[in-house]
Amino acid sequence: MKTFWSGRPELERELEEVRGTILRRAASEDPDVQAAVQHLFAAPGKMLRPAFVLIASRFGTPDRERILRAAAAVEMLHMATLVHDDIIDGAATRRGVATLQALKGARTAVLTGDWLLAACVSLVAERGSIEDARALSRLVARICGSEIAQSTDRYVMHTSLRRYLRRIAGKTAALFALSFHVGAQESGCSAELCSILRRLGYNLGMGFQIIDDILDFAAAGSQTGKPTQSDLAQGILTLPAIMGLRADDGRLRGLLDRRPRSRRALARASRLIAERGGMQGARDLAVQFTERSRREIGRLPCNEARTMLLETTESLLIRSY
Amino acid sequence: MKTFWSGRPELERELEEVRGTILRRAASEDPDVQAAVQHLFAAPGKMLRPAFVLIASRFGTPDRERILRAAAAVEMLHMATLVHDDIIDGAATRRGVATLQALKGARTAVLTGDWLLAACVSLVAERGSIEDARALSRLVARICGSEIAQSTDRYVMHTSLRRYLRRIAGKTAALFALSFHVGAQESGCSAELCSILRRLGYNLGMGFQIIDDILDFAAAGSQTGKPTQSDLAQGILTLPAIMGLRADDGRLRGLLDRRPRSRRALARASRLIAERGGMQGARDLAVQFTERSRREIGRLPCNEARTMLLETTESLLIRSY
Repeated sequence: MKTFWSGRPELERELEEVRGTILRRAASEDPDVQAAVQHLFAAPGKMLRPAFVLIASRFGTPDRERILRAAAAVEMLHMATLVHDDIIDGAATRRGVATLQALKGARTAVLTGDWLLAACVSLVAERGSIEDARALSRLVARICGSEIAQSTDRYVMHTSLRRYLRRIAGKTAALFALSFHVGAQESGCSAELCSILRRLGYNLGMGFQIIDDILDFAAAGSQTGKPTQSDLAQGILTLPAIMGLRADDGRLRGLLDRRPRSRRALARASRLIAERGGMQGARDLAVQFTERSRREIGRLPCNEARTMLLETTESLLIRSY
Repeated sequence: MKTFWSGRPELERELEEVRGTILRRAASEDPDVQAAVQHLFAAPGKMLRPAFVLIASRFGTPDRERILRAAAAVEMLHMATLVHDDIIDGAATRRGVATLQALKGARTAVLTGDWLLAACVSLVAERGSIEDARALSRLVARICGSEIAQSTDRYVMHTSLRRYLRRIAGKTAALFALSFHVGAQESGCSAELCSILRRLGYNLGMGFQIIDDILDFAAAGSQTGKPTQSDLAQGILTLPAIMGLRADDGRLRGLLDRRPRSRRALARASRLIAERGGMQGARDLAVQFTERSRREIGRLPCNEARTMLLETTESLLIRSY
């Protein structure tokens, strides 16, 4: 099976160990927790966040066990948000596999998400420092705050660019940044190197999320694994819509005010957004974050890990937009 | 308004401050988080867990700020479990007030629960010790594990007494025990005193949950604020059913196997359970835990806080069973 990290067998092996760490943790809890977590690994994703921890750690002198644990913690946090997102969206499948809630009910899904959150914090608190535990719990609170804001912003036409950027920073970029930072810090990198890697993570995360939001308009269902315009159908205005509304003569706004849900109305909204330069405006901003990511990579010492980061940035940010 | 702590105005004032601490925390995050948390306080419960922290702290020399923070943390954890429970049960009201999910949708409810969990850990990690953060996150994982087990046990006729006890220990007694322990430890009580208070919390929690499960069979809807036999209707076998099945000739089991949901079938199941001594067996066990609680209280130094604990035990455990 060709995966995102196929060209890096060593990293793939380490990510396999990260999965093992998480599964062992679940197994020690309860057979039912174990079964739920096992199901989540039936269709593993790119495992970007633990990969970032592992790659960043190579800029220092990593303690293998420590780094694997940190990588497992960030992946568990990410898994928790996915499980809870699927409940919220009532999603039946993710990456082509039945969601936990479709398979075992909302009860198990809510609780498995909670368990993953708690186990993630517990993993960090057990061996990590109190600073790590603090940073992690603050981040989780921030992620939740951003998502609650996103839910309040539904059908709010005057959502500002600033509010959108803050939302995706909390939702995506903060965990990307933390993943890089933790990997660097835990392997003894200098404060400066930690900062560069954290900023790289942040910009990569911002660019990644903007492109994801663009693809939600543009891509065929098969490409992202979810139906097109799912954000708009839920009333969530992402960057293309926000940029489109800026140059609007009232028609786009009028259409969105009527809360389009039919395929036809959604297609019309997409067309209006594109006509008003919304897609291009979003792409321009994605390019800015890509450039910033590249600039941070340029500040890193030349080694194999830097090459990997350059490749990863290319494949994540230079996607079909 | 007569509340559970009406006879203790000083404690009531402190609990008001605990609510204030939680609301300030929510306000600092986001107006939407604040609105959600404010709604949860529209019908505050007994606030047993923070009250336990406050009362236990009086056996030592409490630092006011520190204790208020610990009390806020345990209440936030409890609130998180309530919010997520309501999603799972699809509950429309709690304590006569619309649930968060009924008012603002499942999305906000899932996220508010997550935020409360994270903010609770963050509150502890910020000022507390790494040991506190560890104990707390392990406890959260344990609570989730117990609830997942409860959901797996639905309609499982051979649920053992031992498994039931482990389930309610994780679901209720563990947080009761932690509340007492944290209050005692944070105010500098001796290790022995901490142990007594922790054991008191554990036994009080076990007795409290068993009585809650008995009342689910016996009480009128108005008394517990939820419909009678809600557990059985969901296929959750609690102590009366488990004890009843032990003395069953097959009729009770046959009835439960058909998954009773109608009022009539549920009433018949209740009757069979009572006839087979299930209610009495459950009551006997509740009495045992009440006795153990009293014994621990007997080991405490004589002071006003001890009198409060005795009174609280009476009113919580000597309820209408």
